[in-house]
Amino acid sequence: MKLSELAAKIEGVFSGDGTINIHGVAGIREAGGGEISFIANPRYASEAALTQASAVIVSEDWNSDCPAVLIRVKNPDAAFAKAATLFYVPAPLPAIGVHPSAVVAQDVQLGDGVRIGPLCVVESGVKIGARTVLVANCYIGYRSEIGEDSLLYPQVSLREFVKIGKRAILHNGTVVGSDGFGYSVDGNGVRTKIQQIGTVEIGDDVEIGANTTIDRARFGKTRIGNGVKIDNLVQVAHNAVLGDHVVLVAQVAIAGSTTIGEKTIFAGQSGAAGHLKIGSGVIVGAGSGVTKDTPDGAYVMGMPAIPAAKMKRNHAGLMLLPKLKERLAALDLRVCKLEENKQP
Amino acid sequence: MKLSELAAKIEGVFSGDGTINIHGVAGIREAGGGEISFIANPRYASEAALTQASAVIVSEDWNSDCPAVLIRVKNPDAAFAKAATLFYVPAPLPAIGVHPSAVVAQDVQLGDGVRIGPLCVVESGVKIGARTVLVANCYIGYRSEIGEDSLLYPQVSLREFVKIGKRAILHNGTVVGSDGFGYSVDGNGVRTKIQQIGTVEIGDDVEIGANTTIDRARFGKTRIGNGVKIDNLVQVAHNAVLGDHVVLVAQVAIAGSTTIGEKTIFAGQSGAAGHLKIGSGVIVGAGSGVTKDTPDGAYVMGMPAIPAAKMKRNHAGLMLLPKLKERLAALDLRVCKLEENKQP
Amino acid sequence: MKLSELAAKIEGVFSGDGTINIHGVAGIREAGGGEISFIANPRYASEAALTQASAVIVSEDWNSDCPAVLIRVKNPDAAFAKAATLFYVPAPLPAIGVHPSAVVAQDVQLGDGVRIGPLCVVESGVKIGARTVLVANCYIGYRSEIGEDSLLYPQVSLREFVKIGKRAILHNGTVVGSDGFGYSVDGNGVRTKIQQIGTVEIGDDVEIGANTTIDRARFGKTRIGNGVKIDNLVQVAHNAVLGDHVVLVAQVAIAGSTTIGEKTIFAGQSGAAGHLKIGSGVIVGAGSGVTKDTPDGAYVMGMPAIPAAKMKRNHAGLMLLPKLKERLAALDLRVCKLEENKQP
Repeated sequence: MKLSELAAKIEGVFSGDGTINIHGVAGIREAGGGEISFIANPRYASEAALTQASAVIVSEDWNSDCPAVLIRVKNPDAAFAKAATLFYVPAPLPAIGVHPSAVVAQDVQLGDGVRIGPLCVVESGVKIGARTVLVANCYIGYRSEIGEDSLLYPQVSLREFVKIGKRAILHNGTVVGSDGFGYSVDGNGVRTKIQQIGTVEIGDDVEIGANTTIDRARFGKTRIGNGVKIDNLVQVAHNAVLGDHVVLVAQVAIAGSTTIGEKTIFAGQSGAAGHLKIGSGVIVGAGSGVTKDTPDGAYVMGMPAIPAAKMKRNHAGLMLLPKLKERLAALDLRVCKLEENKQP
Repeated sequence: MKLSELAAKIEGVFSGDGTINIHGVAGIREAGGGEISFIANPRYASEAALTQASAVIVSEDWNSDCPAVLIRVKNPDAAFAKAATLFYVPAPLPAIGVHPSAVVAQDVQLGDGVRIGPLCVVESGVKIGARTVLVANCYIGYRSEIGEDSLLYPQVSLREFVKIGKRAILHNGTVVGSDGFGYSVDGNGVRTKIQQIGTVEIGDDVEIGANTTIDRARFGKTRIGNGVKIDNLVQVAHNAVLGDHVVLVAQVAIAGSTTIGEKTIFAGQSGAAGHLKIGSGVIVGAGSGVTKDTPDGAYVMGMPAIPAAKMKRNHAGLMLLPKLKERLAALDLRVCKLEENKQP
Repeated sequence: MKLSELAAKIEGVFSGDGTINIHGVAGIREAGGGEISFIANPRYASEAALTQASAVIVSEDWNSDCPAVLIRVKNPDAAFAKAATLFYVPAPLPAIGVHPSAVVAQDVQLGDGVRIGPLCVVESGVKIGARTVLVANCYIGYRSEIGEDSLLYPQVSLREFVKIGKRAILHNGTVVGSDGFGYSVDGNGVRTKIQQIGTVEIGDDVEIGANTTIDRARFGKTRIGNGVKIDNLVQVAHNAVLGDHVVLVAQVAIAGSTTIGEKTIFAGQSGAAGHLKIGSGVIVGAGSGVTKDTPDGAYVMGMPAIPAAKMKRNHAGLMLLPKLKERLAALDLRVCKLEENKQP
């Protein structure tokens, strides 16, 4: 694509040779000839002077050195994101219909334009909405349902009776509807399985990362609200309830029957114990463990998690402990002296 | 099912219309017309007044308001669990025999009633006990053995020479027998793989959750005892030994060569370092990390894990640190005054 | 194999009957008749007296009791490792070529001796180097490339445009190239997906454990250097950069855009926040969370991670807090007495 054409598409003004050909995007350090990059943060302005990129997207008030052709825009970050999509070559989807190597029950209901890729298994009673894609090697269990315009990457497994909404994206190896972890225990510590006869219901516009696991309910439903975004290797246990727009970053674990309000965010490697009520708009710090009911809007950290301000104060206190010990010893000495003086 | 019939099956006494039709179970808040729910904990008695359920299972001494027909029983929790199983529709199993799309070596030994579902791969020398089921897309490596009455959900992988006992349940995406993480290191930090030529041996009545990984031994065996229950996304490293009835909750990691006694429980996101001896009946708190040998019956918490009582005391002390600092400053002032007074 | 023959192969000197037949290796406690074991650490010498092994490899200066035939060597650990490989029966590989059940695009480029096992899917434009093996049920996305002499175990998934070097080993269920976790957020907490249009590039001699996930870049590349070793259930987020010979133990999580220098080691269940620069030769303790840029050679622990020596001092201080509180109370009493005395 000609640089002048690209500049027009991202609503930018270029200064220099508009006829040069741009064939891709890259970071400011990695970019080479024929590639376009960007500087969004003035902190990185010095890197522009050394770039090998043929063109660089900068802010309108840019005035640092740069050997590349400049395209000035209002928001370099957004403009670059747009430029990147112009060069993006998506992987082709499987053909519309059912690949001959897939094993699909006769009674499934497939919407218009559904694509079932190679080596998928789709069990009896399944319903799949229009334009939904199963890329390859997926397993869709008995009577499960997937809404329209969803995308399941290879090796996704859904167990029986699971419901997934519209525009879902499920990444490779994710499992929805595996049994909850529930046993009765006798006096000898021997465990007997409690049948997990509930299911999982997932709202619209949900994205779930790779190799994540979401367990079916003991009875009733494990629920994932609309717009929820879940990263890789996350565990959601039986009967958990995630409100709309909840975010679970990588390796989070939510224990059984815990309810999480709208828009709450769990940072990476954090978790919540079972049977808790966690409010809306809560932020749980990375690696933290929530062990108590938590009010709306709280920002908690630590294991066990406490309000972040208190945790930071405790941590600062901990760092000062050696000094505290020294001060106590010094005071002790002074008291000793006073005691000696007192005795005539 | 008629309510009167249901009441008889759960050994309860109903008061009200026994002819109404019940078609499912649900939680007290979610239940609607035609569904039965329960109250096991008096804390939730107030919710019974608002339920939409047609029937509610309660304790024999129940005396709160509830618009639904009541069924009184000795143990509402157990009675409800039984009711739930009465309405449970299990997913159908694959047919007895080998699905035509599966790739099964000619010399495998399959017991009576074995079901190999679509798109499974079963390698040479494998033995599978009577009535065991591979649902779909499973991989069973060279000369592995699975006992009778076991159930492998889709996308389970067993590497070569793995042995799994009777009545095992392995959930989707679980891997048994992957190589242990072992390398020799030279002076430049370059690692050379140490061949992991051992295997994994798993006892009877073991359940393993989704996307869990259990590594094969460097040599000898990684061992999982009878009745062990492992949740989702758990890591068991090479040469670990888990005693009978051990419980590993979600995202636990047990490092190499660590031995764990019978009935020990690791709560979610906890872990153990390598080469430890951890006793029987130990409880490891959520998110804790065991770094030392641990005696039978210990209850440990924290990172590094210490006895839970000590950890709680430390945590309380930490919360009091700001006050301790204040008290020290106040005392300092008082000593200053005494020192001034002393000097005439 | 005759014991005399085995002794010669491991360059050891045996004392006793060299004609006995050895058919396998095992640990000193587990070994039975016909098996050979070893004692590398004098701590375990007492176990040799009770072994059922037919032969035991010991150090040249061994002088404890042992009922088995002894083979004396310079380095018992290395000699035993060698002995173990002599008895190792590897699983057979799939045949050279493409298994008839695999679904392989017509335009793929396969090197000499490539083995594509049953039920694999290989998409259009893929290049696979000579002698590389896909065991079974793998998915290789559009235009991905894998170098020579690599081994992909069952159920490995590579998304489109991923590049993997020579001599790679990828264990079961691992995912490379899933979308990074990136969204723009509006004022109502509603998230819109940012297309992840970059890819993943992995160097030579890399091993990746089971069910690990490595996300593709937002744009540009997530990079894994040469000789990197990654264990099971690890998360590497978009645009992370791992230097050569980095080691990530089980359940580690590296957040987005973090750069890690050569030979740095993250112990199990540790993690790093996003956008950090972590130096070379750093060691991050188990369960720790790095939240700041970290210099070369640092050894850090804790959550948040601080220098290990400081963390240990803090921890010791925490254990002494109750005593500190007592000492403060005692001092308070002494000051009270002084104050009383002062007042005539």
